[in-house]
Amino acid sequence: MLQSKLFTKTSKQTPKDETSVNASLLMRAGFVDKLTAGVYTYLPLGLRVLNKIKNIIREEMNELGGQEILMPALTPKENWVTTGRWDKIDVMFKLEGAGSKEYALGSTHEEVVTPLVQKFASSYKDLPVAVYQIQDKFRNEPRAKAGLLRGREFSMKDLYSFHGSDEDLDRFYEKSIDSYFKIFKRCSLESYLTFASGGVFSKYSHEFQTLTENGEDHIFVCEKCKVAVNKEIIEEQKECPKCGNKDLVEKKSIEIGNIFKLKSKFTDAFGYKYTDEEGKQQPVVMGCYGIGPSRIMGTIVEIYNDENGMVWPKEVAPFDVHLLSLGEDEKILKETEKIYKKLQAEGVEVLWDDRNITAGNKFADSDLIGIPKRVVVSKKTLEAGSVEVKMRNEKESNLIEIKNL
Amino acid sequence: MLQSKLFTKTSKQTPKDETSVNASLLMRAGFVDKLTAGVYTYLPLGLRVLNKIKNIIREEMNELGGQEILMPALTPKENWVTTGRWDKIDVMFKLEGAGSKEYALGSTHEEVVTPLVQKFASSYKDLPVAVYQIQDKFRNEPRAKAGLLRGREFSMKDLYSFHGSDEDLDRFYEKSIDSYFKIFKRCSLESYLTFASGGVFSKYSHEFQTLTENGEDHIFVCEKCKVAVNKEIIEEQKECPKCGNKDLVEKKSIEIGNIFKLKSKFTDAFGYKYTDEEGKQQPVVMGCYGIGPSRIMGTIVEIYNDENGMVWPKEVAPFDVHLLSLGEDEKILKETEKIYKKLQAEGVEVLWDDRNITAGNKFADSDLIGIPKRVVVSKKTLEAGSVEVKMRNEKESNLIEIKNL
Repeated sequence: MLQSKLFTKTSKQTPKDETSVNASLLMRAGFVDKLTAGVYTYLPLGLRVLNKIKNIIREEMNELGGQEILMPALTPKENWVTTGRWDKIDVMFKLEGAGSKEYALGSTHEEVVTPLVQKFASSYKDLPVAVYQIQDKFRNEPRAKAGLLRGREFSMKDLYSFHGSDEDLDRFYEKSIDSYFKIFKRCSLESYLTFASGGVFSKYSHEFQTLTENGEDHIFVCEKCKVAVNKEIIEEQKECPKCGNKDLVEKKSIEIGNIFKLKSKFTDAFGYKYTDEEGKQQPVVMGCYGIGPSRIMGTIVEIYNDENGMVWPKEVAPFDVHLLSLGEDEKILKETEKIYKKLQAEGVEVLWDDRNITAGNKFADSDLIGIPKRVVVSKKTLEAGSVEVKMRNEKESNLIEIKNL
Repeated sequence: MLQSKLFTKTSKQTPKDETSVNASLLMRAGFVDKLTAGVYTYLPLGLRVLNKIKNIIREEMNELGGQEILMPALTPKENWVTTGRWDKIDVMFKLEGAGSKEYALGSTHEEVVTPLVQKFASSYKDLPVAVYQIQDKFRNEPRAKAGLLRGREFSMKDLYSFHGSDEDLDRFYEKSIDSYFKIFKRCSLESYLTFASGGVFSKYSHEFQTLTENGEDHIFVCEKCKVAVNKEIIEEQKECPKCGNKDLVEKKSIEIGNIFKLKSKFTDAFGYKYTDEEGKQQPVVMGCYGIGPSRIMGTIVEIYNDENGMVWPKEVAPFDVHLLSLGEDEKILKETEKIYKKLQAEGVEVLWDDRNITAGNKFADSDLIGIPKRVVVSKKTLEAGSVEVKMRNEKESNLIEIKNL
């Protein structure tokens, strides 16, 4: 893409009313725009990152056996009354439509997915079923000051699994942990499997937490096992649940995913049972598995930045290469165009800063935007038949012959 | 994909409370599920179709020069008050959040996109700008009985263009008409450019209408020019706006897109002007361009169906090939698997009905689902070293040698 065609611009000013590192940098670089507290527009560069994260998640959910669907945000009151949550979820946005019909904006989708799967999977032959969606959720958060980490509208991948037995749920639940670790690894986020409070049916739920001083959560880490315990249950769970180690270290962190065994909590509410091999009615047990792509995006920015801007990990960067042509000399523009086309032909995603601005401004913008690899074409390098290549997270740059690009 | 793994099932029964052909067929075939009036879940087969339509639109909007962004559905009251539309859009869902903050669910996005582009494009050098999104819209429709044709939550592509002069807007507007025709052609929908009422600033807006007896709209068609006049303006526009022909023929139709010159209606409201080459402040003029992917999907079903089910046009079909293996004979399953893998390796999208059910049920489901090409492997065809290939919209089938597949 030609940067001269991009309608967004960078800004040197930290946006007012924005205390979070992630939103400040993303807004300054023109990745997102804040419409109102906790509500952001994704601009072309930001949308590219968000879609890359969504696609990583999608690939791993398909690999796990999930079937993608798309549920609505507008959900009728009846479904929430059935499970008793209409008055229990305090962050739920409620609204009224034609004929005084009441709705909630989906803050989670158990109330939609359970009666949906119930329509199709009624026999042991139909189970297990795992369905997921990547869709916007709405939560009426009292405070929304953490940028993409806590939005009032935000993207979510929510997978729901349905099983004929606790053992089958357990098996799938363990497999999902592996999938989650793969996703975070691909997003360059180190994560700790963190034991958190369960519910009526389960002792624990599990969170995936990544360490950062900017995090809102507190976890107690077992360095040996690479697992952790959330502060909320540290009174009852004082030692590592895996090895019994009592020397847990308190750290600040961001929750980047959570998984939960719901057992028959929601299936019971909807009277959802299945017929087993002997023709008997049996309870269907359920698990739910969440990751917020926009929260992942915000977390990556919180962790991967320096004094000059963002430093995107390769797999989620808006482009692979930031190509900078310095000066308006025709020869430089022609050579840069050749390189631009050559890289694109090889499937490399290139943002070419072809704007008529100073070299200093190009470097500053490039530092802020944070594309991992930067290729600079200037009079000096051209005379040597080379370009300057620099990784965004390294101090040094190298001259590389153009033919070896 | 293996059909045995698909969690949805077909149904022989027409769903109750569903009068539209599109929703009946889509629900019976397991493409969508109705959550409540005007609100649908897209199931795996339906989501594939919806995404193909979205991608066709995305490709053509990129080709037109549009930059993709993603705006929120949750929009603050202030923006609507600024343009005077807070109390004027009667289908707007309104809601209240923390701190008594009032929001509208976006039924359209001029109120978000105008101040957004205003932040970045302030000079003649920055114009024109064209941005678009593909996102869910919400409309509190009093009646929602037309399936995907009139939803309370539905997908929309909305592009907005910003220009420094009326002439530049006119040029872009004409180009957008070509893009729209390309989109509809790729979706196998014949469309008429239809003159409809303009607004304060423009004599006409334009709709794209496709003819069908199931349509809610009435248009008057000039067969010579392939343009039409919407019934709503036939009193003032009695002849073809292109050739003056007075023999216009009344037809029923579905509106599948509309484009509108907004001129400075919204930019004025937000005080959005640009600086021209002489340093003077000038009005920014705007156009908007809408297509609903879910409405396109519903329209295609209304037009492409027969007594046995849906007949998807190639480019939007959930799969390219429906592969049916008849019987549980091990040799048949093995040969079918080979064919399945061979087709997949060639990039063909295949749904293999590997279920242990009767041939009659497989054919009935295949007719209902409507994948354009059907390949049948049976004992009879295998003995001849061939498979039976049938196009969904043709009566006859052919035997084709497996090696020529």
